[in-house]
Amino acid sequence: MAGLKTLIGVMGGGAVNASVAGLAYDLGFAIAQAGWVVLCGGRNAGVMAAVAAGAHDAHGLTVGVLPDANTDQIAPEIDIPIVTGMGDARNMINVLSSRVVVALPGGAGTLSEIALALKTGRPLILLQSSYAPLIQQLSPQTPLAVCSDIASTMTQIHAWLS
Amino acid sequence: MAGLKTLIGVMGGGAVNASVAGLAYDLGFAIAQAGWVVLCGGRNAGVMAAVAAGAHDAHGLTVGVLPDANTDQIAPEIDIPIVTGMGDARNMINVLSSRVVVALPGGAGTLSEIALALKTGRPLILLQSSYAPLIQQLSPQTPLAVCSDIASTMTQIHAWLS
Amino acid sequence: MAGLKTLIGVMGGGAVNASVAGLAYDLGFAIAQAGWVVLCGGRNAGVMAAVAAGAHDAHGLTVGVLPDANTDQIAPEIDIPIVTGMGDARNMINVLSSRVVVALPGGAGTLSEIALALKTGRPLILLQSSYAPLIQQLSPQTPLAVCSDIASTMTQIHAWLS
Amino acid sequence: MAGLKTLIGVMGGGAVNASVAGLAYDLGFAIAQAGWVVLCGGRNAGVMAAVAAGAHDAHGLTVGVLPDANTDQIAPEIDIPIVTGMGDARNMINVLSSRVVVALPGGAGTLSEIALALKTGRPLILLQSSYAPLIQQLSPQTPLAVCSDIASTMTQIHAWLS
Repeated sequence: MAGLKTLIGVMGGGAVNASVAGLAYDLGFAIAQAGWVVLCGGRNAGVMAAVAAGAHDAHGLTVGVLPDANTDQIAPEIDIPIVTGMGDARNMINVLSSRVVVALPGGAGTLSEIALALKTGRPLILLQSSYAPLIQQLSPQTPLAVCSDIASTMTQIHAWLS
Repeated sequence: MAGLKTLIGVMGGGAVNASVAGLAYDLGFAIAQAGWVVLCGGRNAGVMAAVAAGAHDAHGLTVGVLPDANTDQIAPEIDIPIVTGMGDARNMINVLSSRVVVALPGGAGTLSEIALALKTGRPLILLQSSYAPLIQQLSPQTPLAVCSDIASTMTQIHAWLS
Repeated sequence: MAGLKTLIGVMGGGAVNASVAGLAYDLGFAIAQAGWVVLCGGRNAGVMAAVAAGAHDAHGLTVGVLPDANTDQIAPEIDIPIVTGMGDARNMINVLSSRVVVALPGGAGTLSEIALALKTGRPLILLQSSYAPLIQQLSPQTPLAVCSDIASTMTQIHAWLS
Repeated sequence: MAGLKTLIGVMGGGAVNASVAGLAYDLGFAIAQAGWVVLCGGRNAGVMAAVAAGAHDAHGLTVGVLPDANTDQIAPEIDIPIVTGMGDARNMINVLSSRVVVALPGGAGTLSEIALALKTGRPLILLQSSYAPLIQQLSPQTPLAVCSDIASTMTQIHAWLS
């Protein structure tokens, strides 16, 4: 243990197909291998569960910022549960707590986190995200990257953190 | 005064051109004339200030849900200040408190409110919004309308509330 | 309608006896007669419901800041529902939005609002509150008054607002 | 790393004397030695900083739930920063995220966390707290203990968690 850890926020849908779940797992694994902490929405579903499982299997630490007022629906691979009881208003905390936000495919919740990252200036990576054309069009002043695989995502995070 | 009022949430940019500000003013005027209450982000800027001014001039009531912990930056035509001190996490309150959400042109903050309306199932009108193609593509289950003028916006709100 | 209204927050238990409910009703009536707006927790229970009913009967305006994500449990005399979906984290919004906070008898929720009023410097009146000895002992820098009836409460609010 | 960790919330003043700071340090040390995670308010002041330092020196993990929208004022011994941007509304998150809440001497902010622990049913220990007589008088249904030293505090936490 040596002081402030680097939290990488991974956002994405609560109901995703096997391909996206696999992508989330691999990203969680890579983030943990790099020595960073995975932060996600914490529930036992979709990208949240998959990214936590990947980080866990690489012996990394995982933080889950739950919308609920209890841990009943927590993903089993979450180490640190942050229990907010504020529903999707917690999406703002996900974004603010992340040094870099990575958005995988997802629905309206994920889109809200992308928007809040742009609003608060958090560096943002869109990984295989269908929202990329729209977001790029916004010409945000936030650091923004569009990536198609995990290798380029990790390279970008390393570049921003160095 | 006769019990529960109908709050119509109007979202949009904090820095907009005269055309959008005029649209917001006219929408606020029309909402107030219909007997509804205008809810907005409350600050003295952009769509927030214009929609409040329009409602005020039509002798309507205005609610401003402020991101700040005080009223220093409140628009002068806000009647009811809700002081949250939670920054853009208050966008969720804007959406949840609105019977219908109308989104005018705006940046990332407005996009987050659109996304949260979809996430929480609040009926949503996109008025002259460049986000319409993306949002329609999401095939949301939320009631959703794309409007180009105030007349059709008001007709849609009336239809949903009846 | 003429710009910024003065919101007086009235806090107190969700389950109270008839005497406290009567006190809340009378206070709501007096606040409305003074031309101010009553802000409360919004639910159809205890002090929240009683103070709203009193204000309503005096033709005043009432704001209810609900802990829930919907209006299912709203008191019927609430005019303006603010729907937060954040549970008791909304107690902070109750306090921040009030020009003066009046605390009637209540349990832990009310005590949290008293504490947050002290923390944020909102002028605070303890009306027939058993917490008065403890709170006075804290020697807060916040304007603080201990009152035993509605007449002295109203006199104190007038003094602070003038 | 092996799944869900036990978070013990330690609350207390942001400006305390050396005796209370020493108590907080020793408690953080003891919690970390027991294998639990310390959760606190995260700022570089008072009980927050002292408890984090103690846990850090015992090679434990520390979570800081910050009221700010950035980490500018974070205590150097915080490992996991949760950045809320919601001011004291984050006190609710402190309480909800803790398996047991321990309240040391503190002011209004600490009192709000005690009240919220009672409201949400989180097990609560008052350690050398001047609020103990008042809180005991409330006859809360929440598990509640009043302790005068760290040994009895740790015994109580162990008892509740077993």
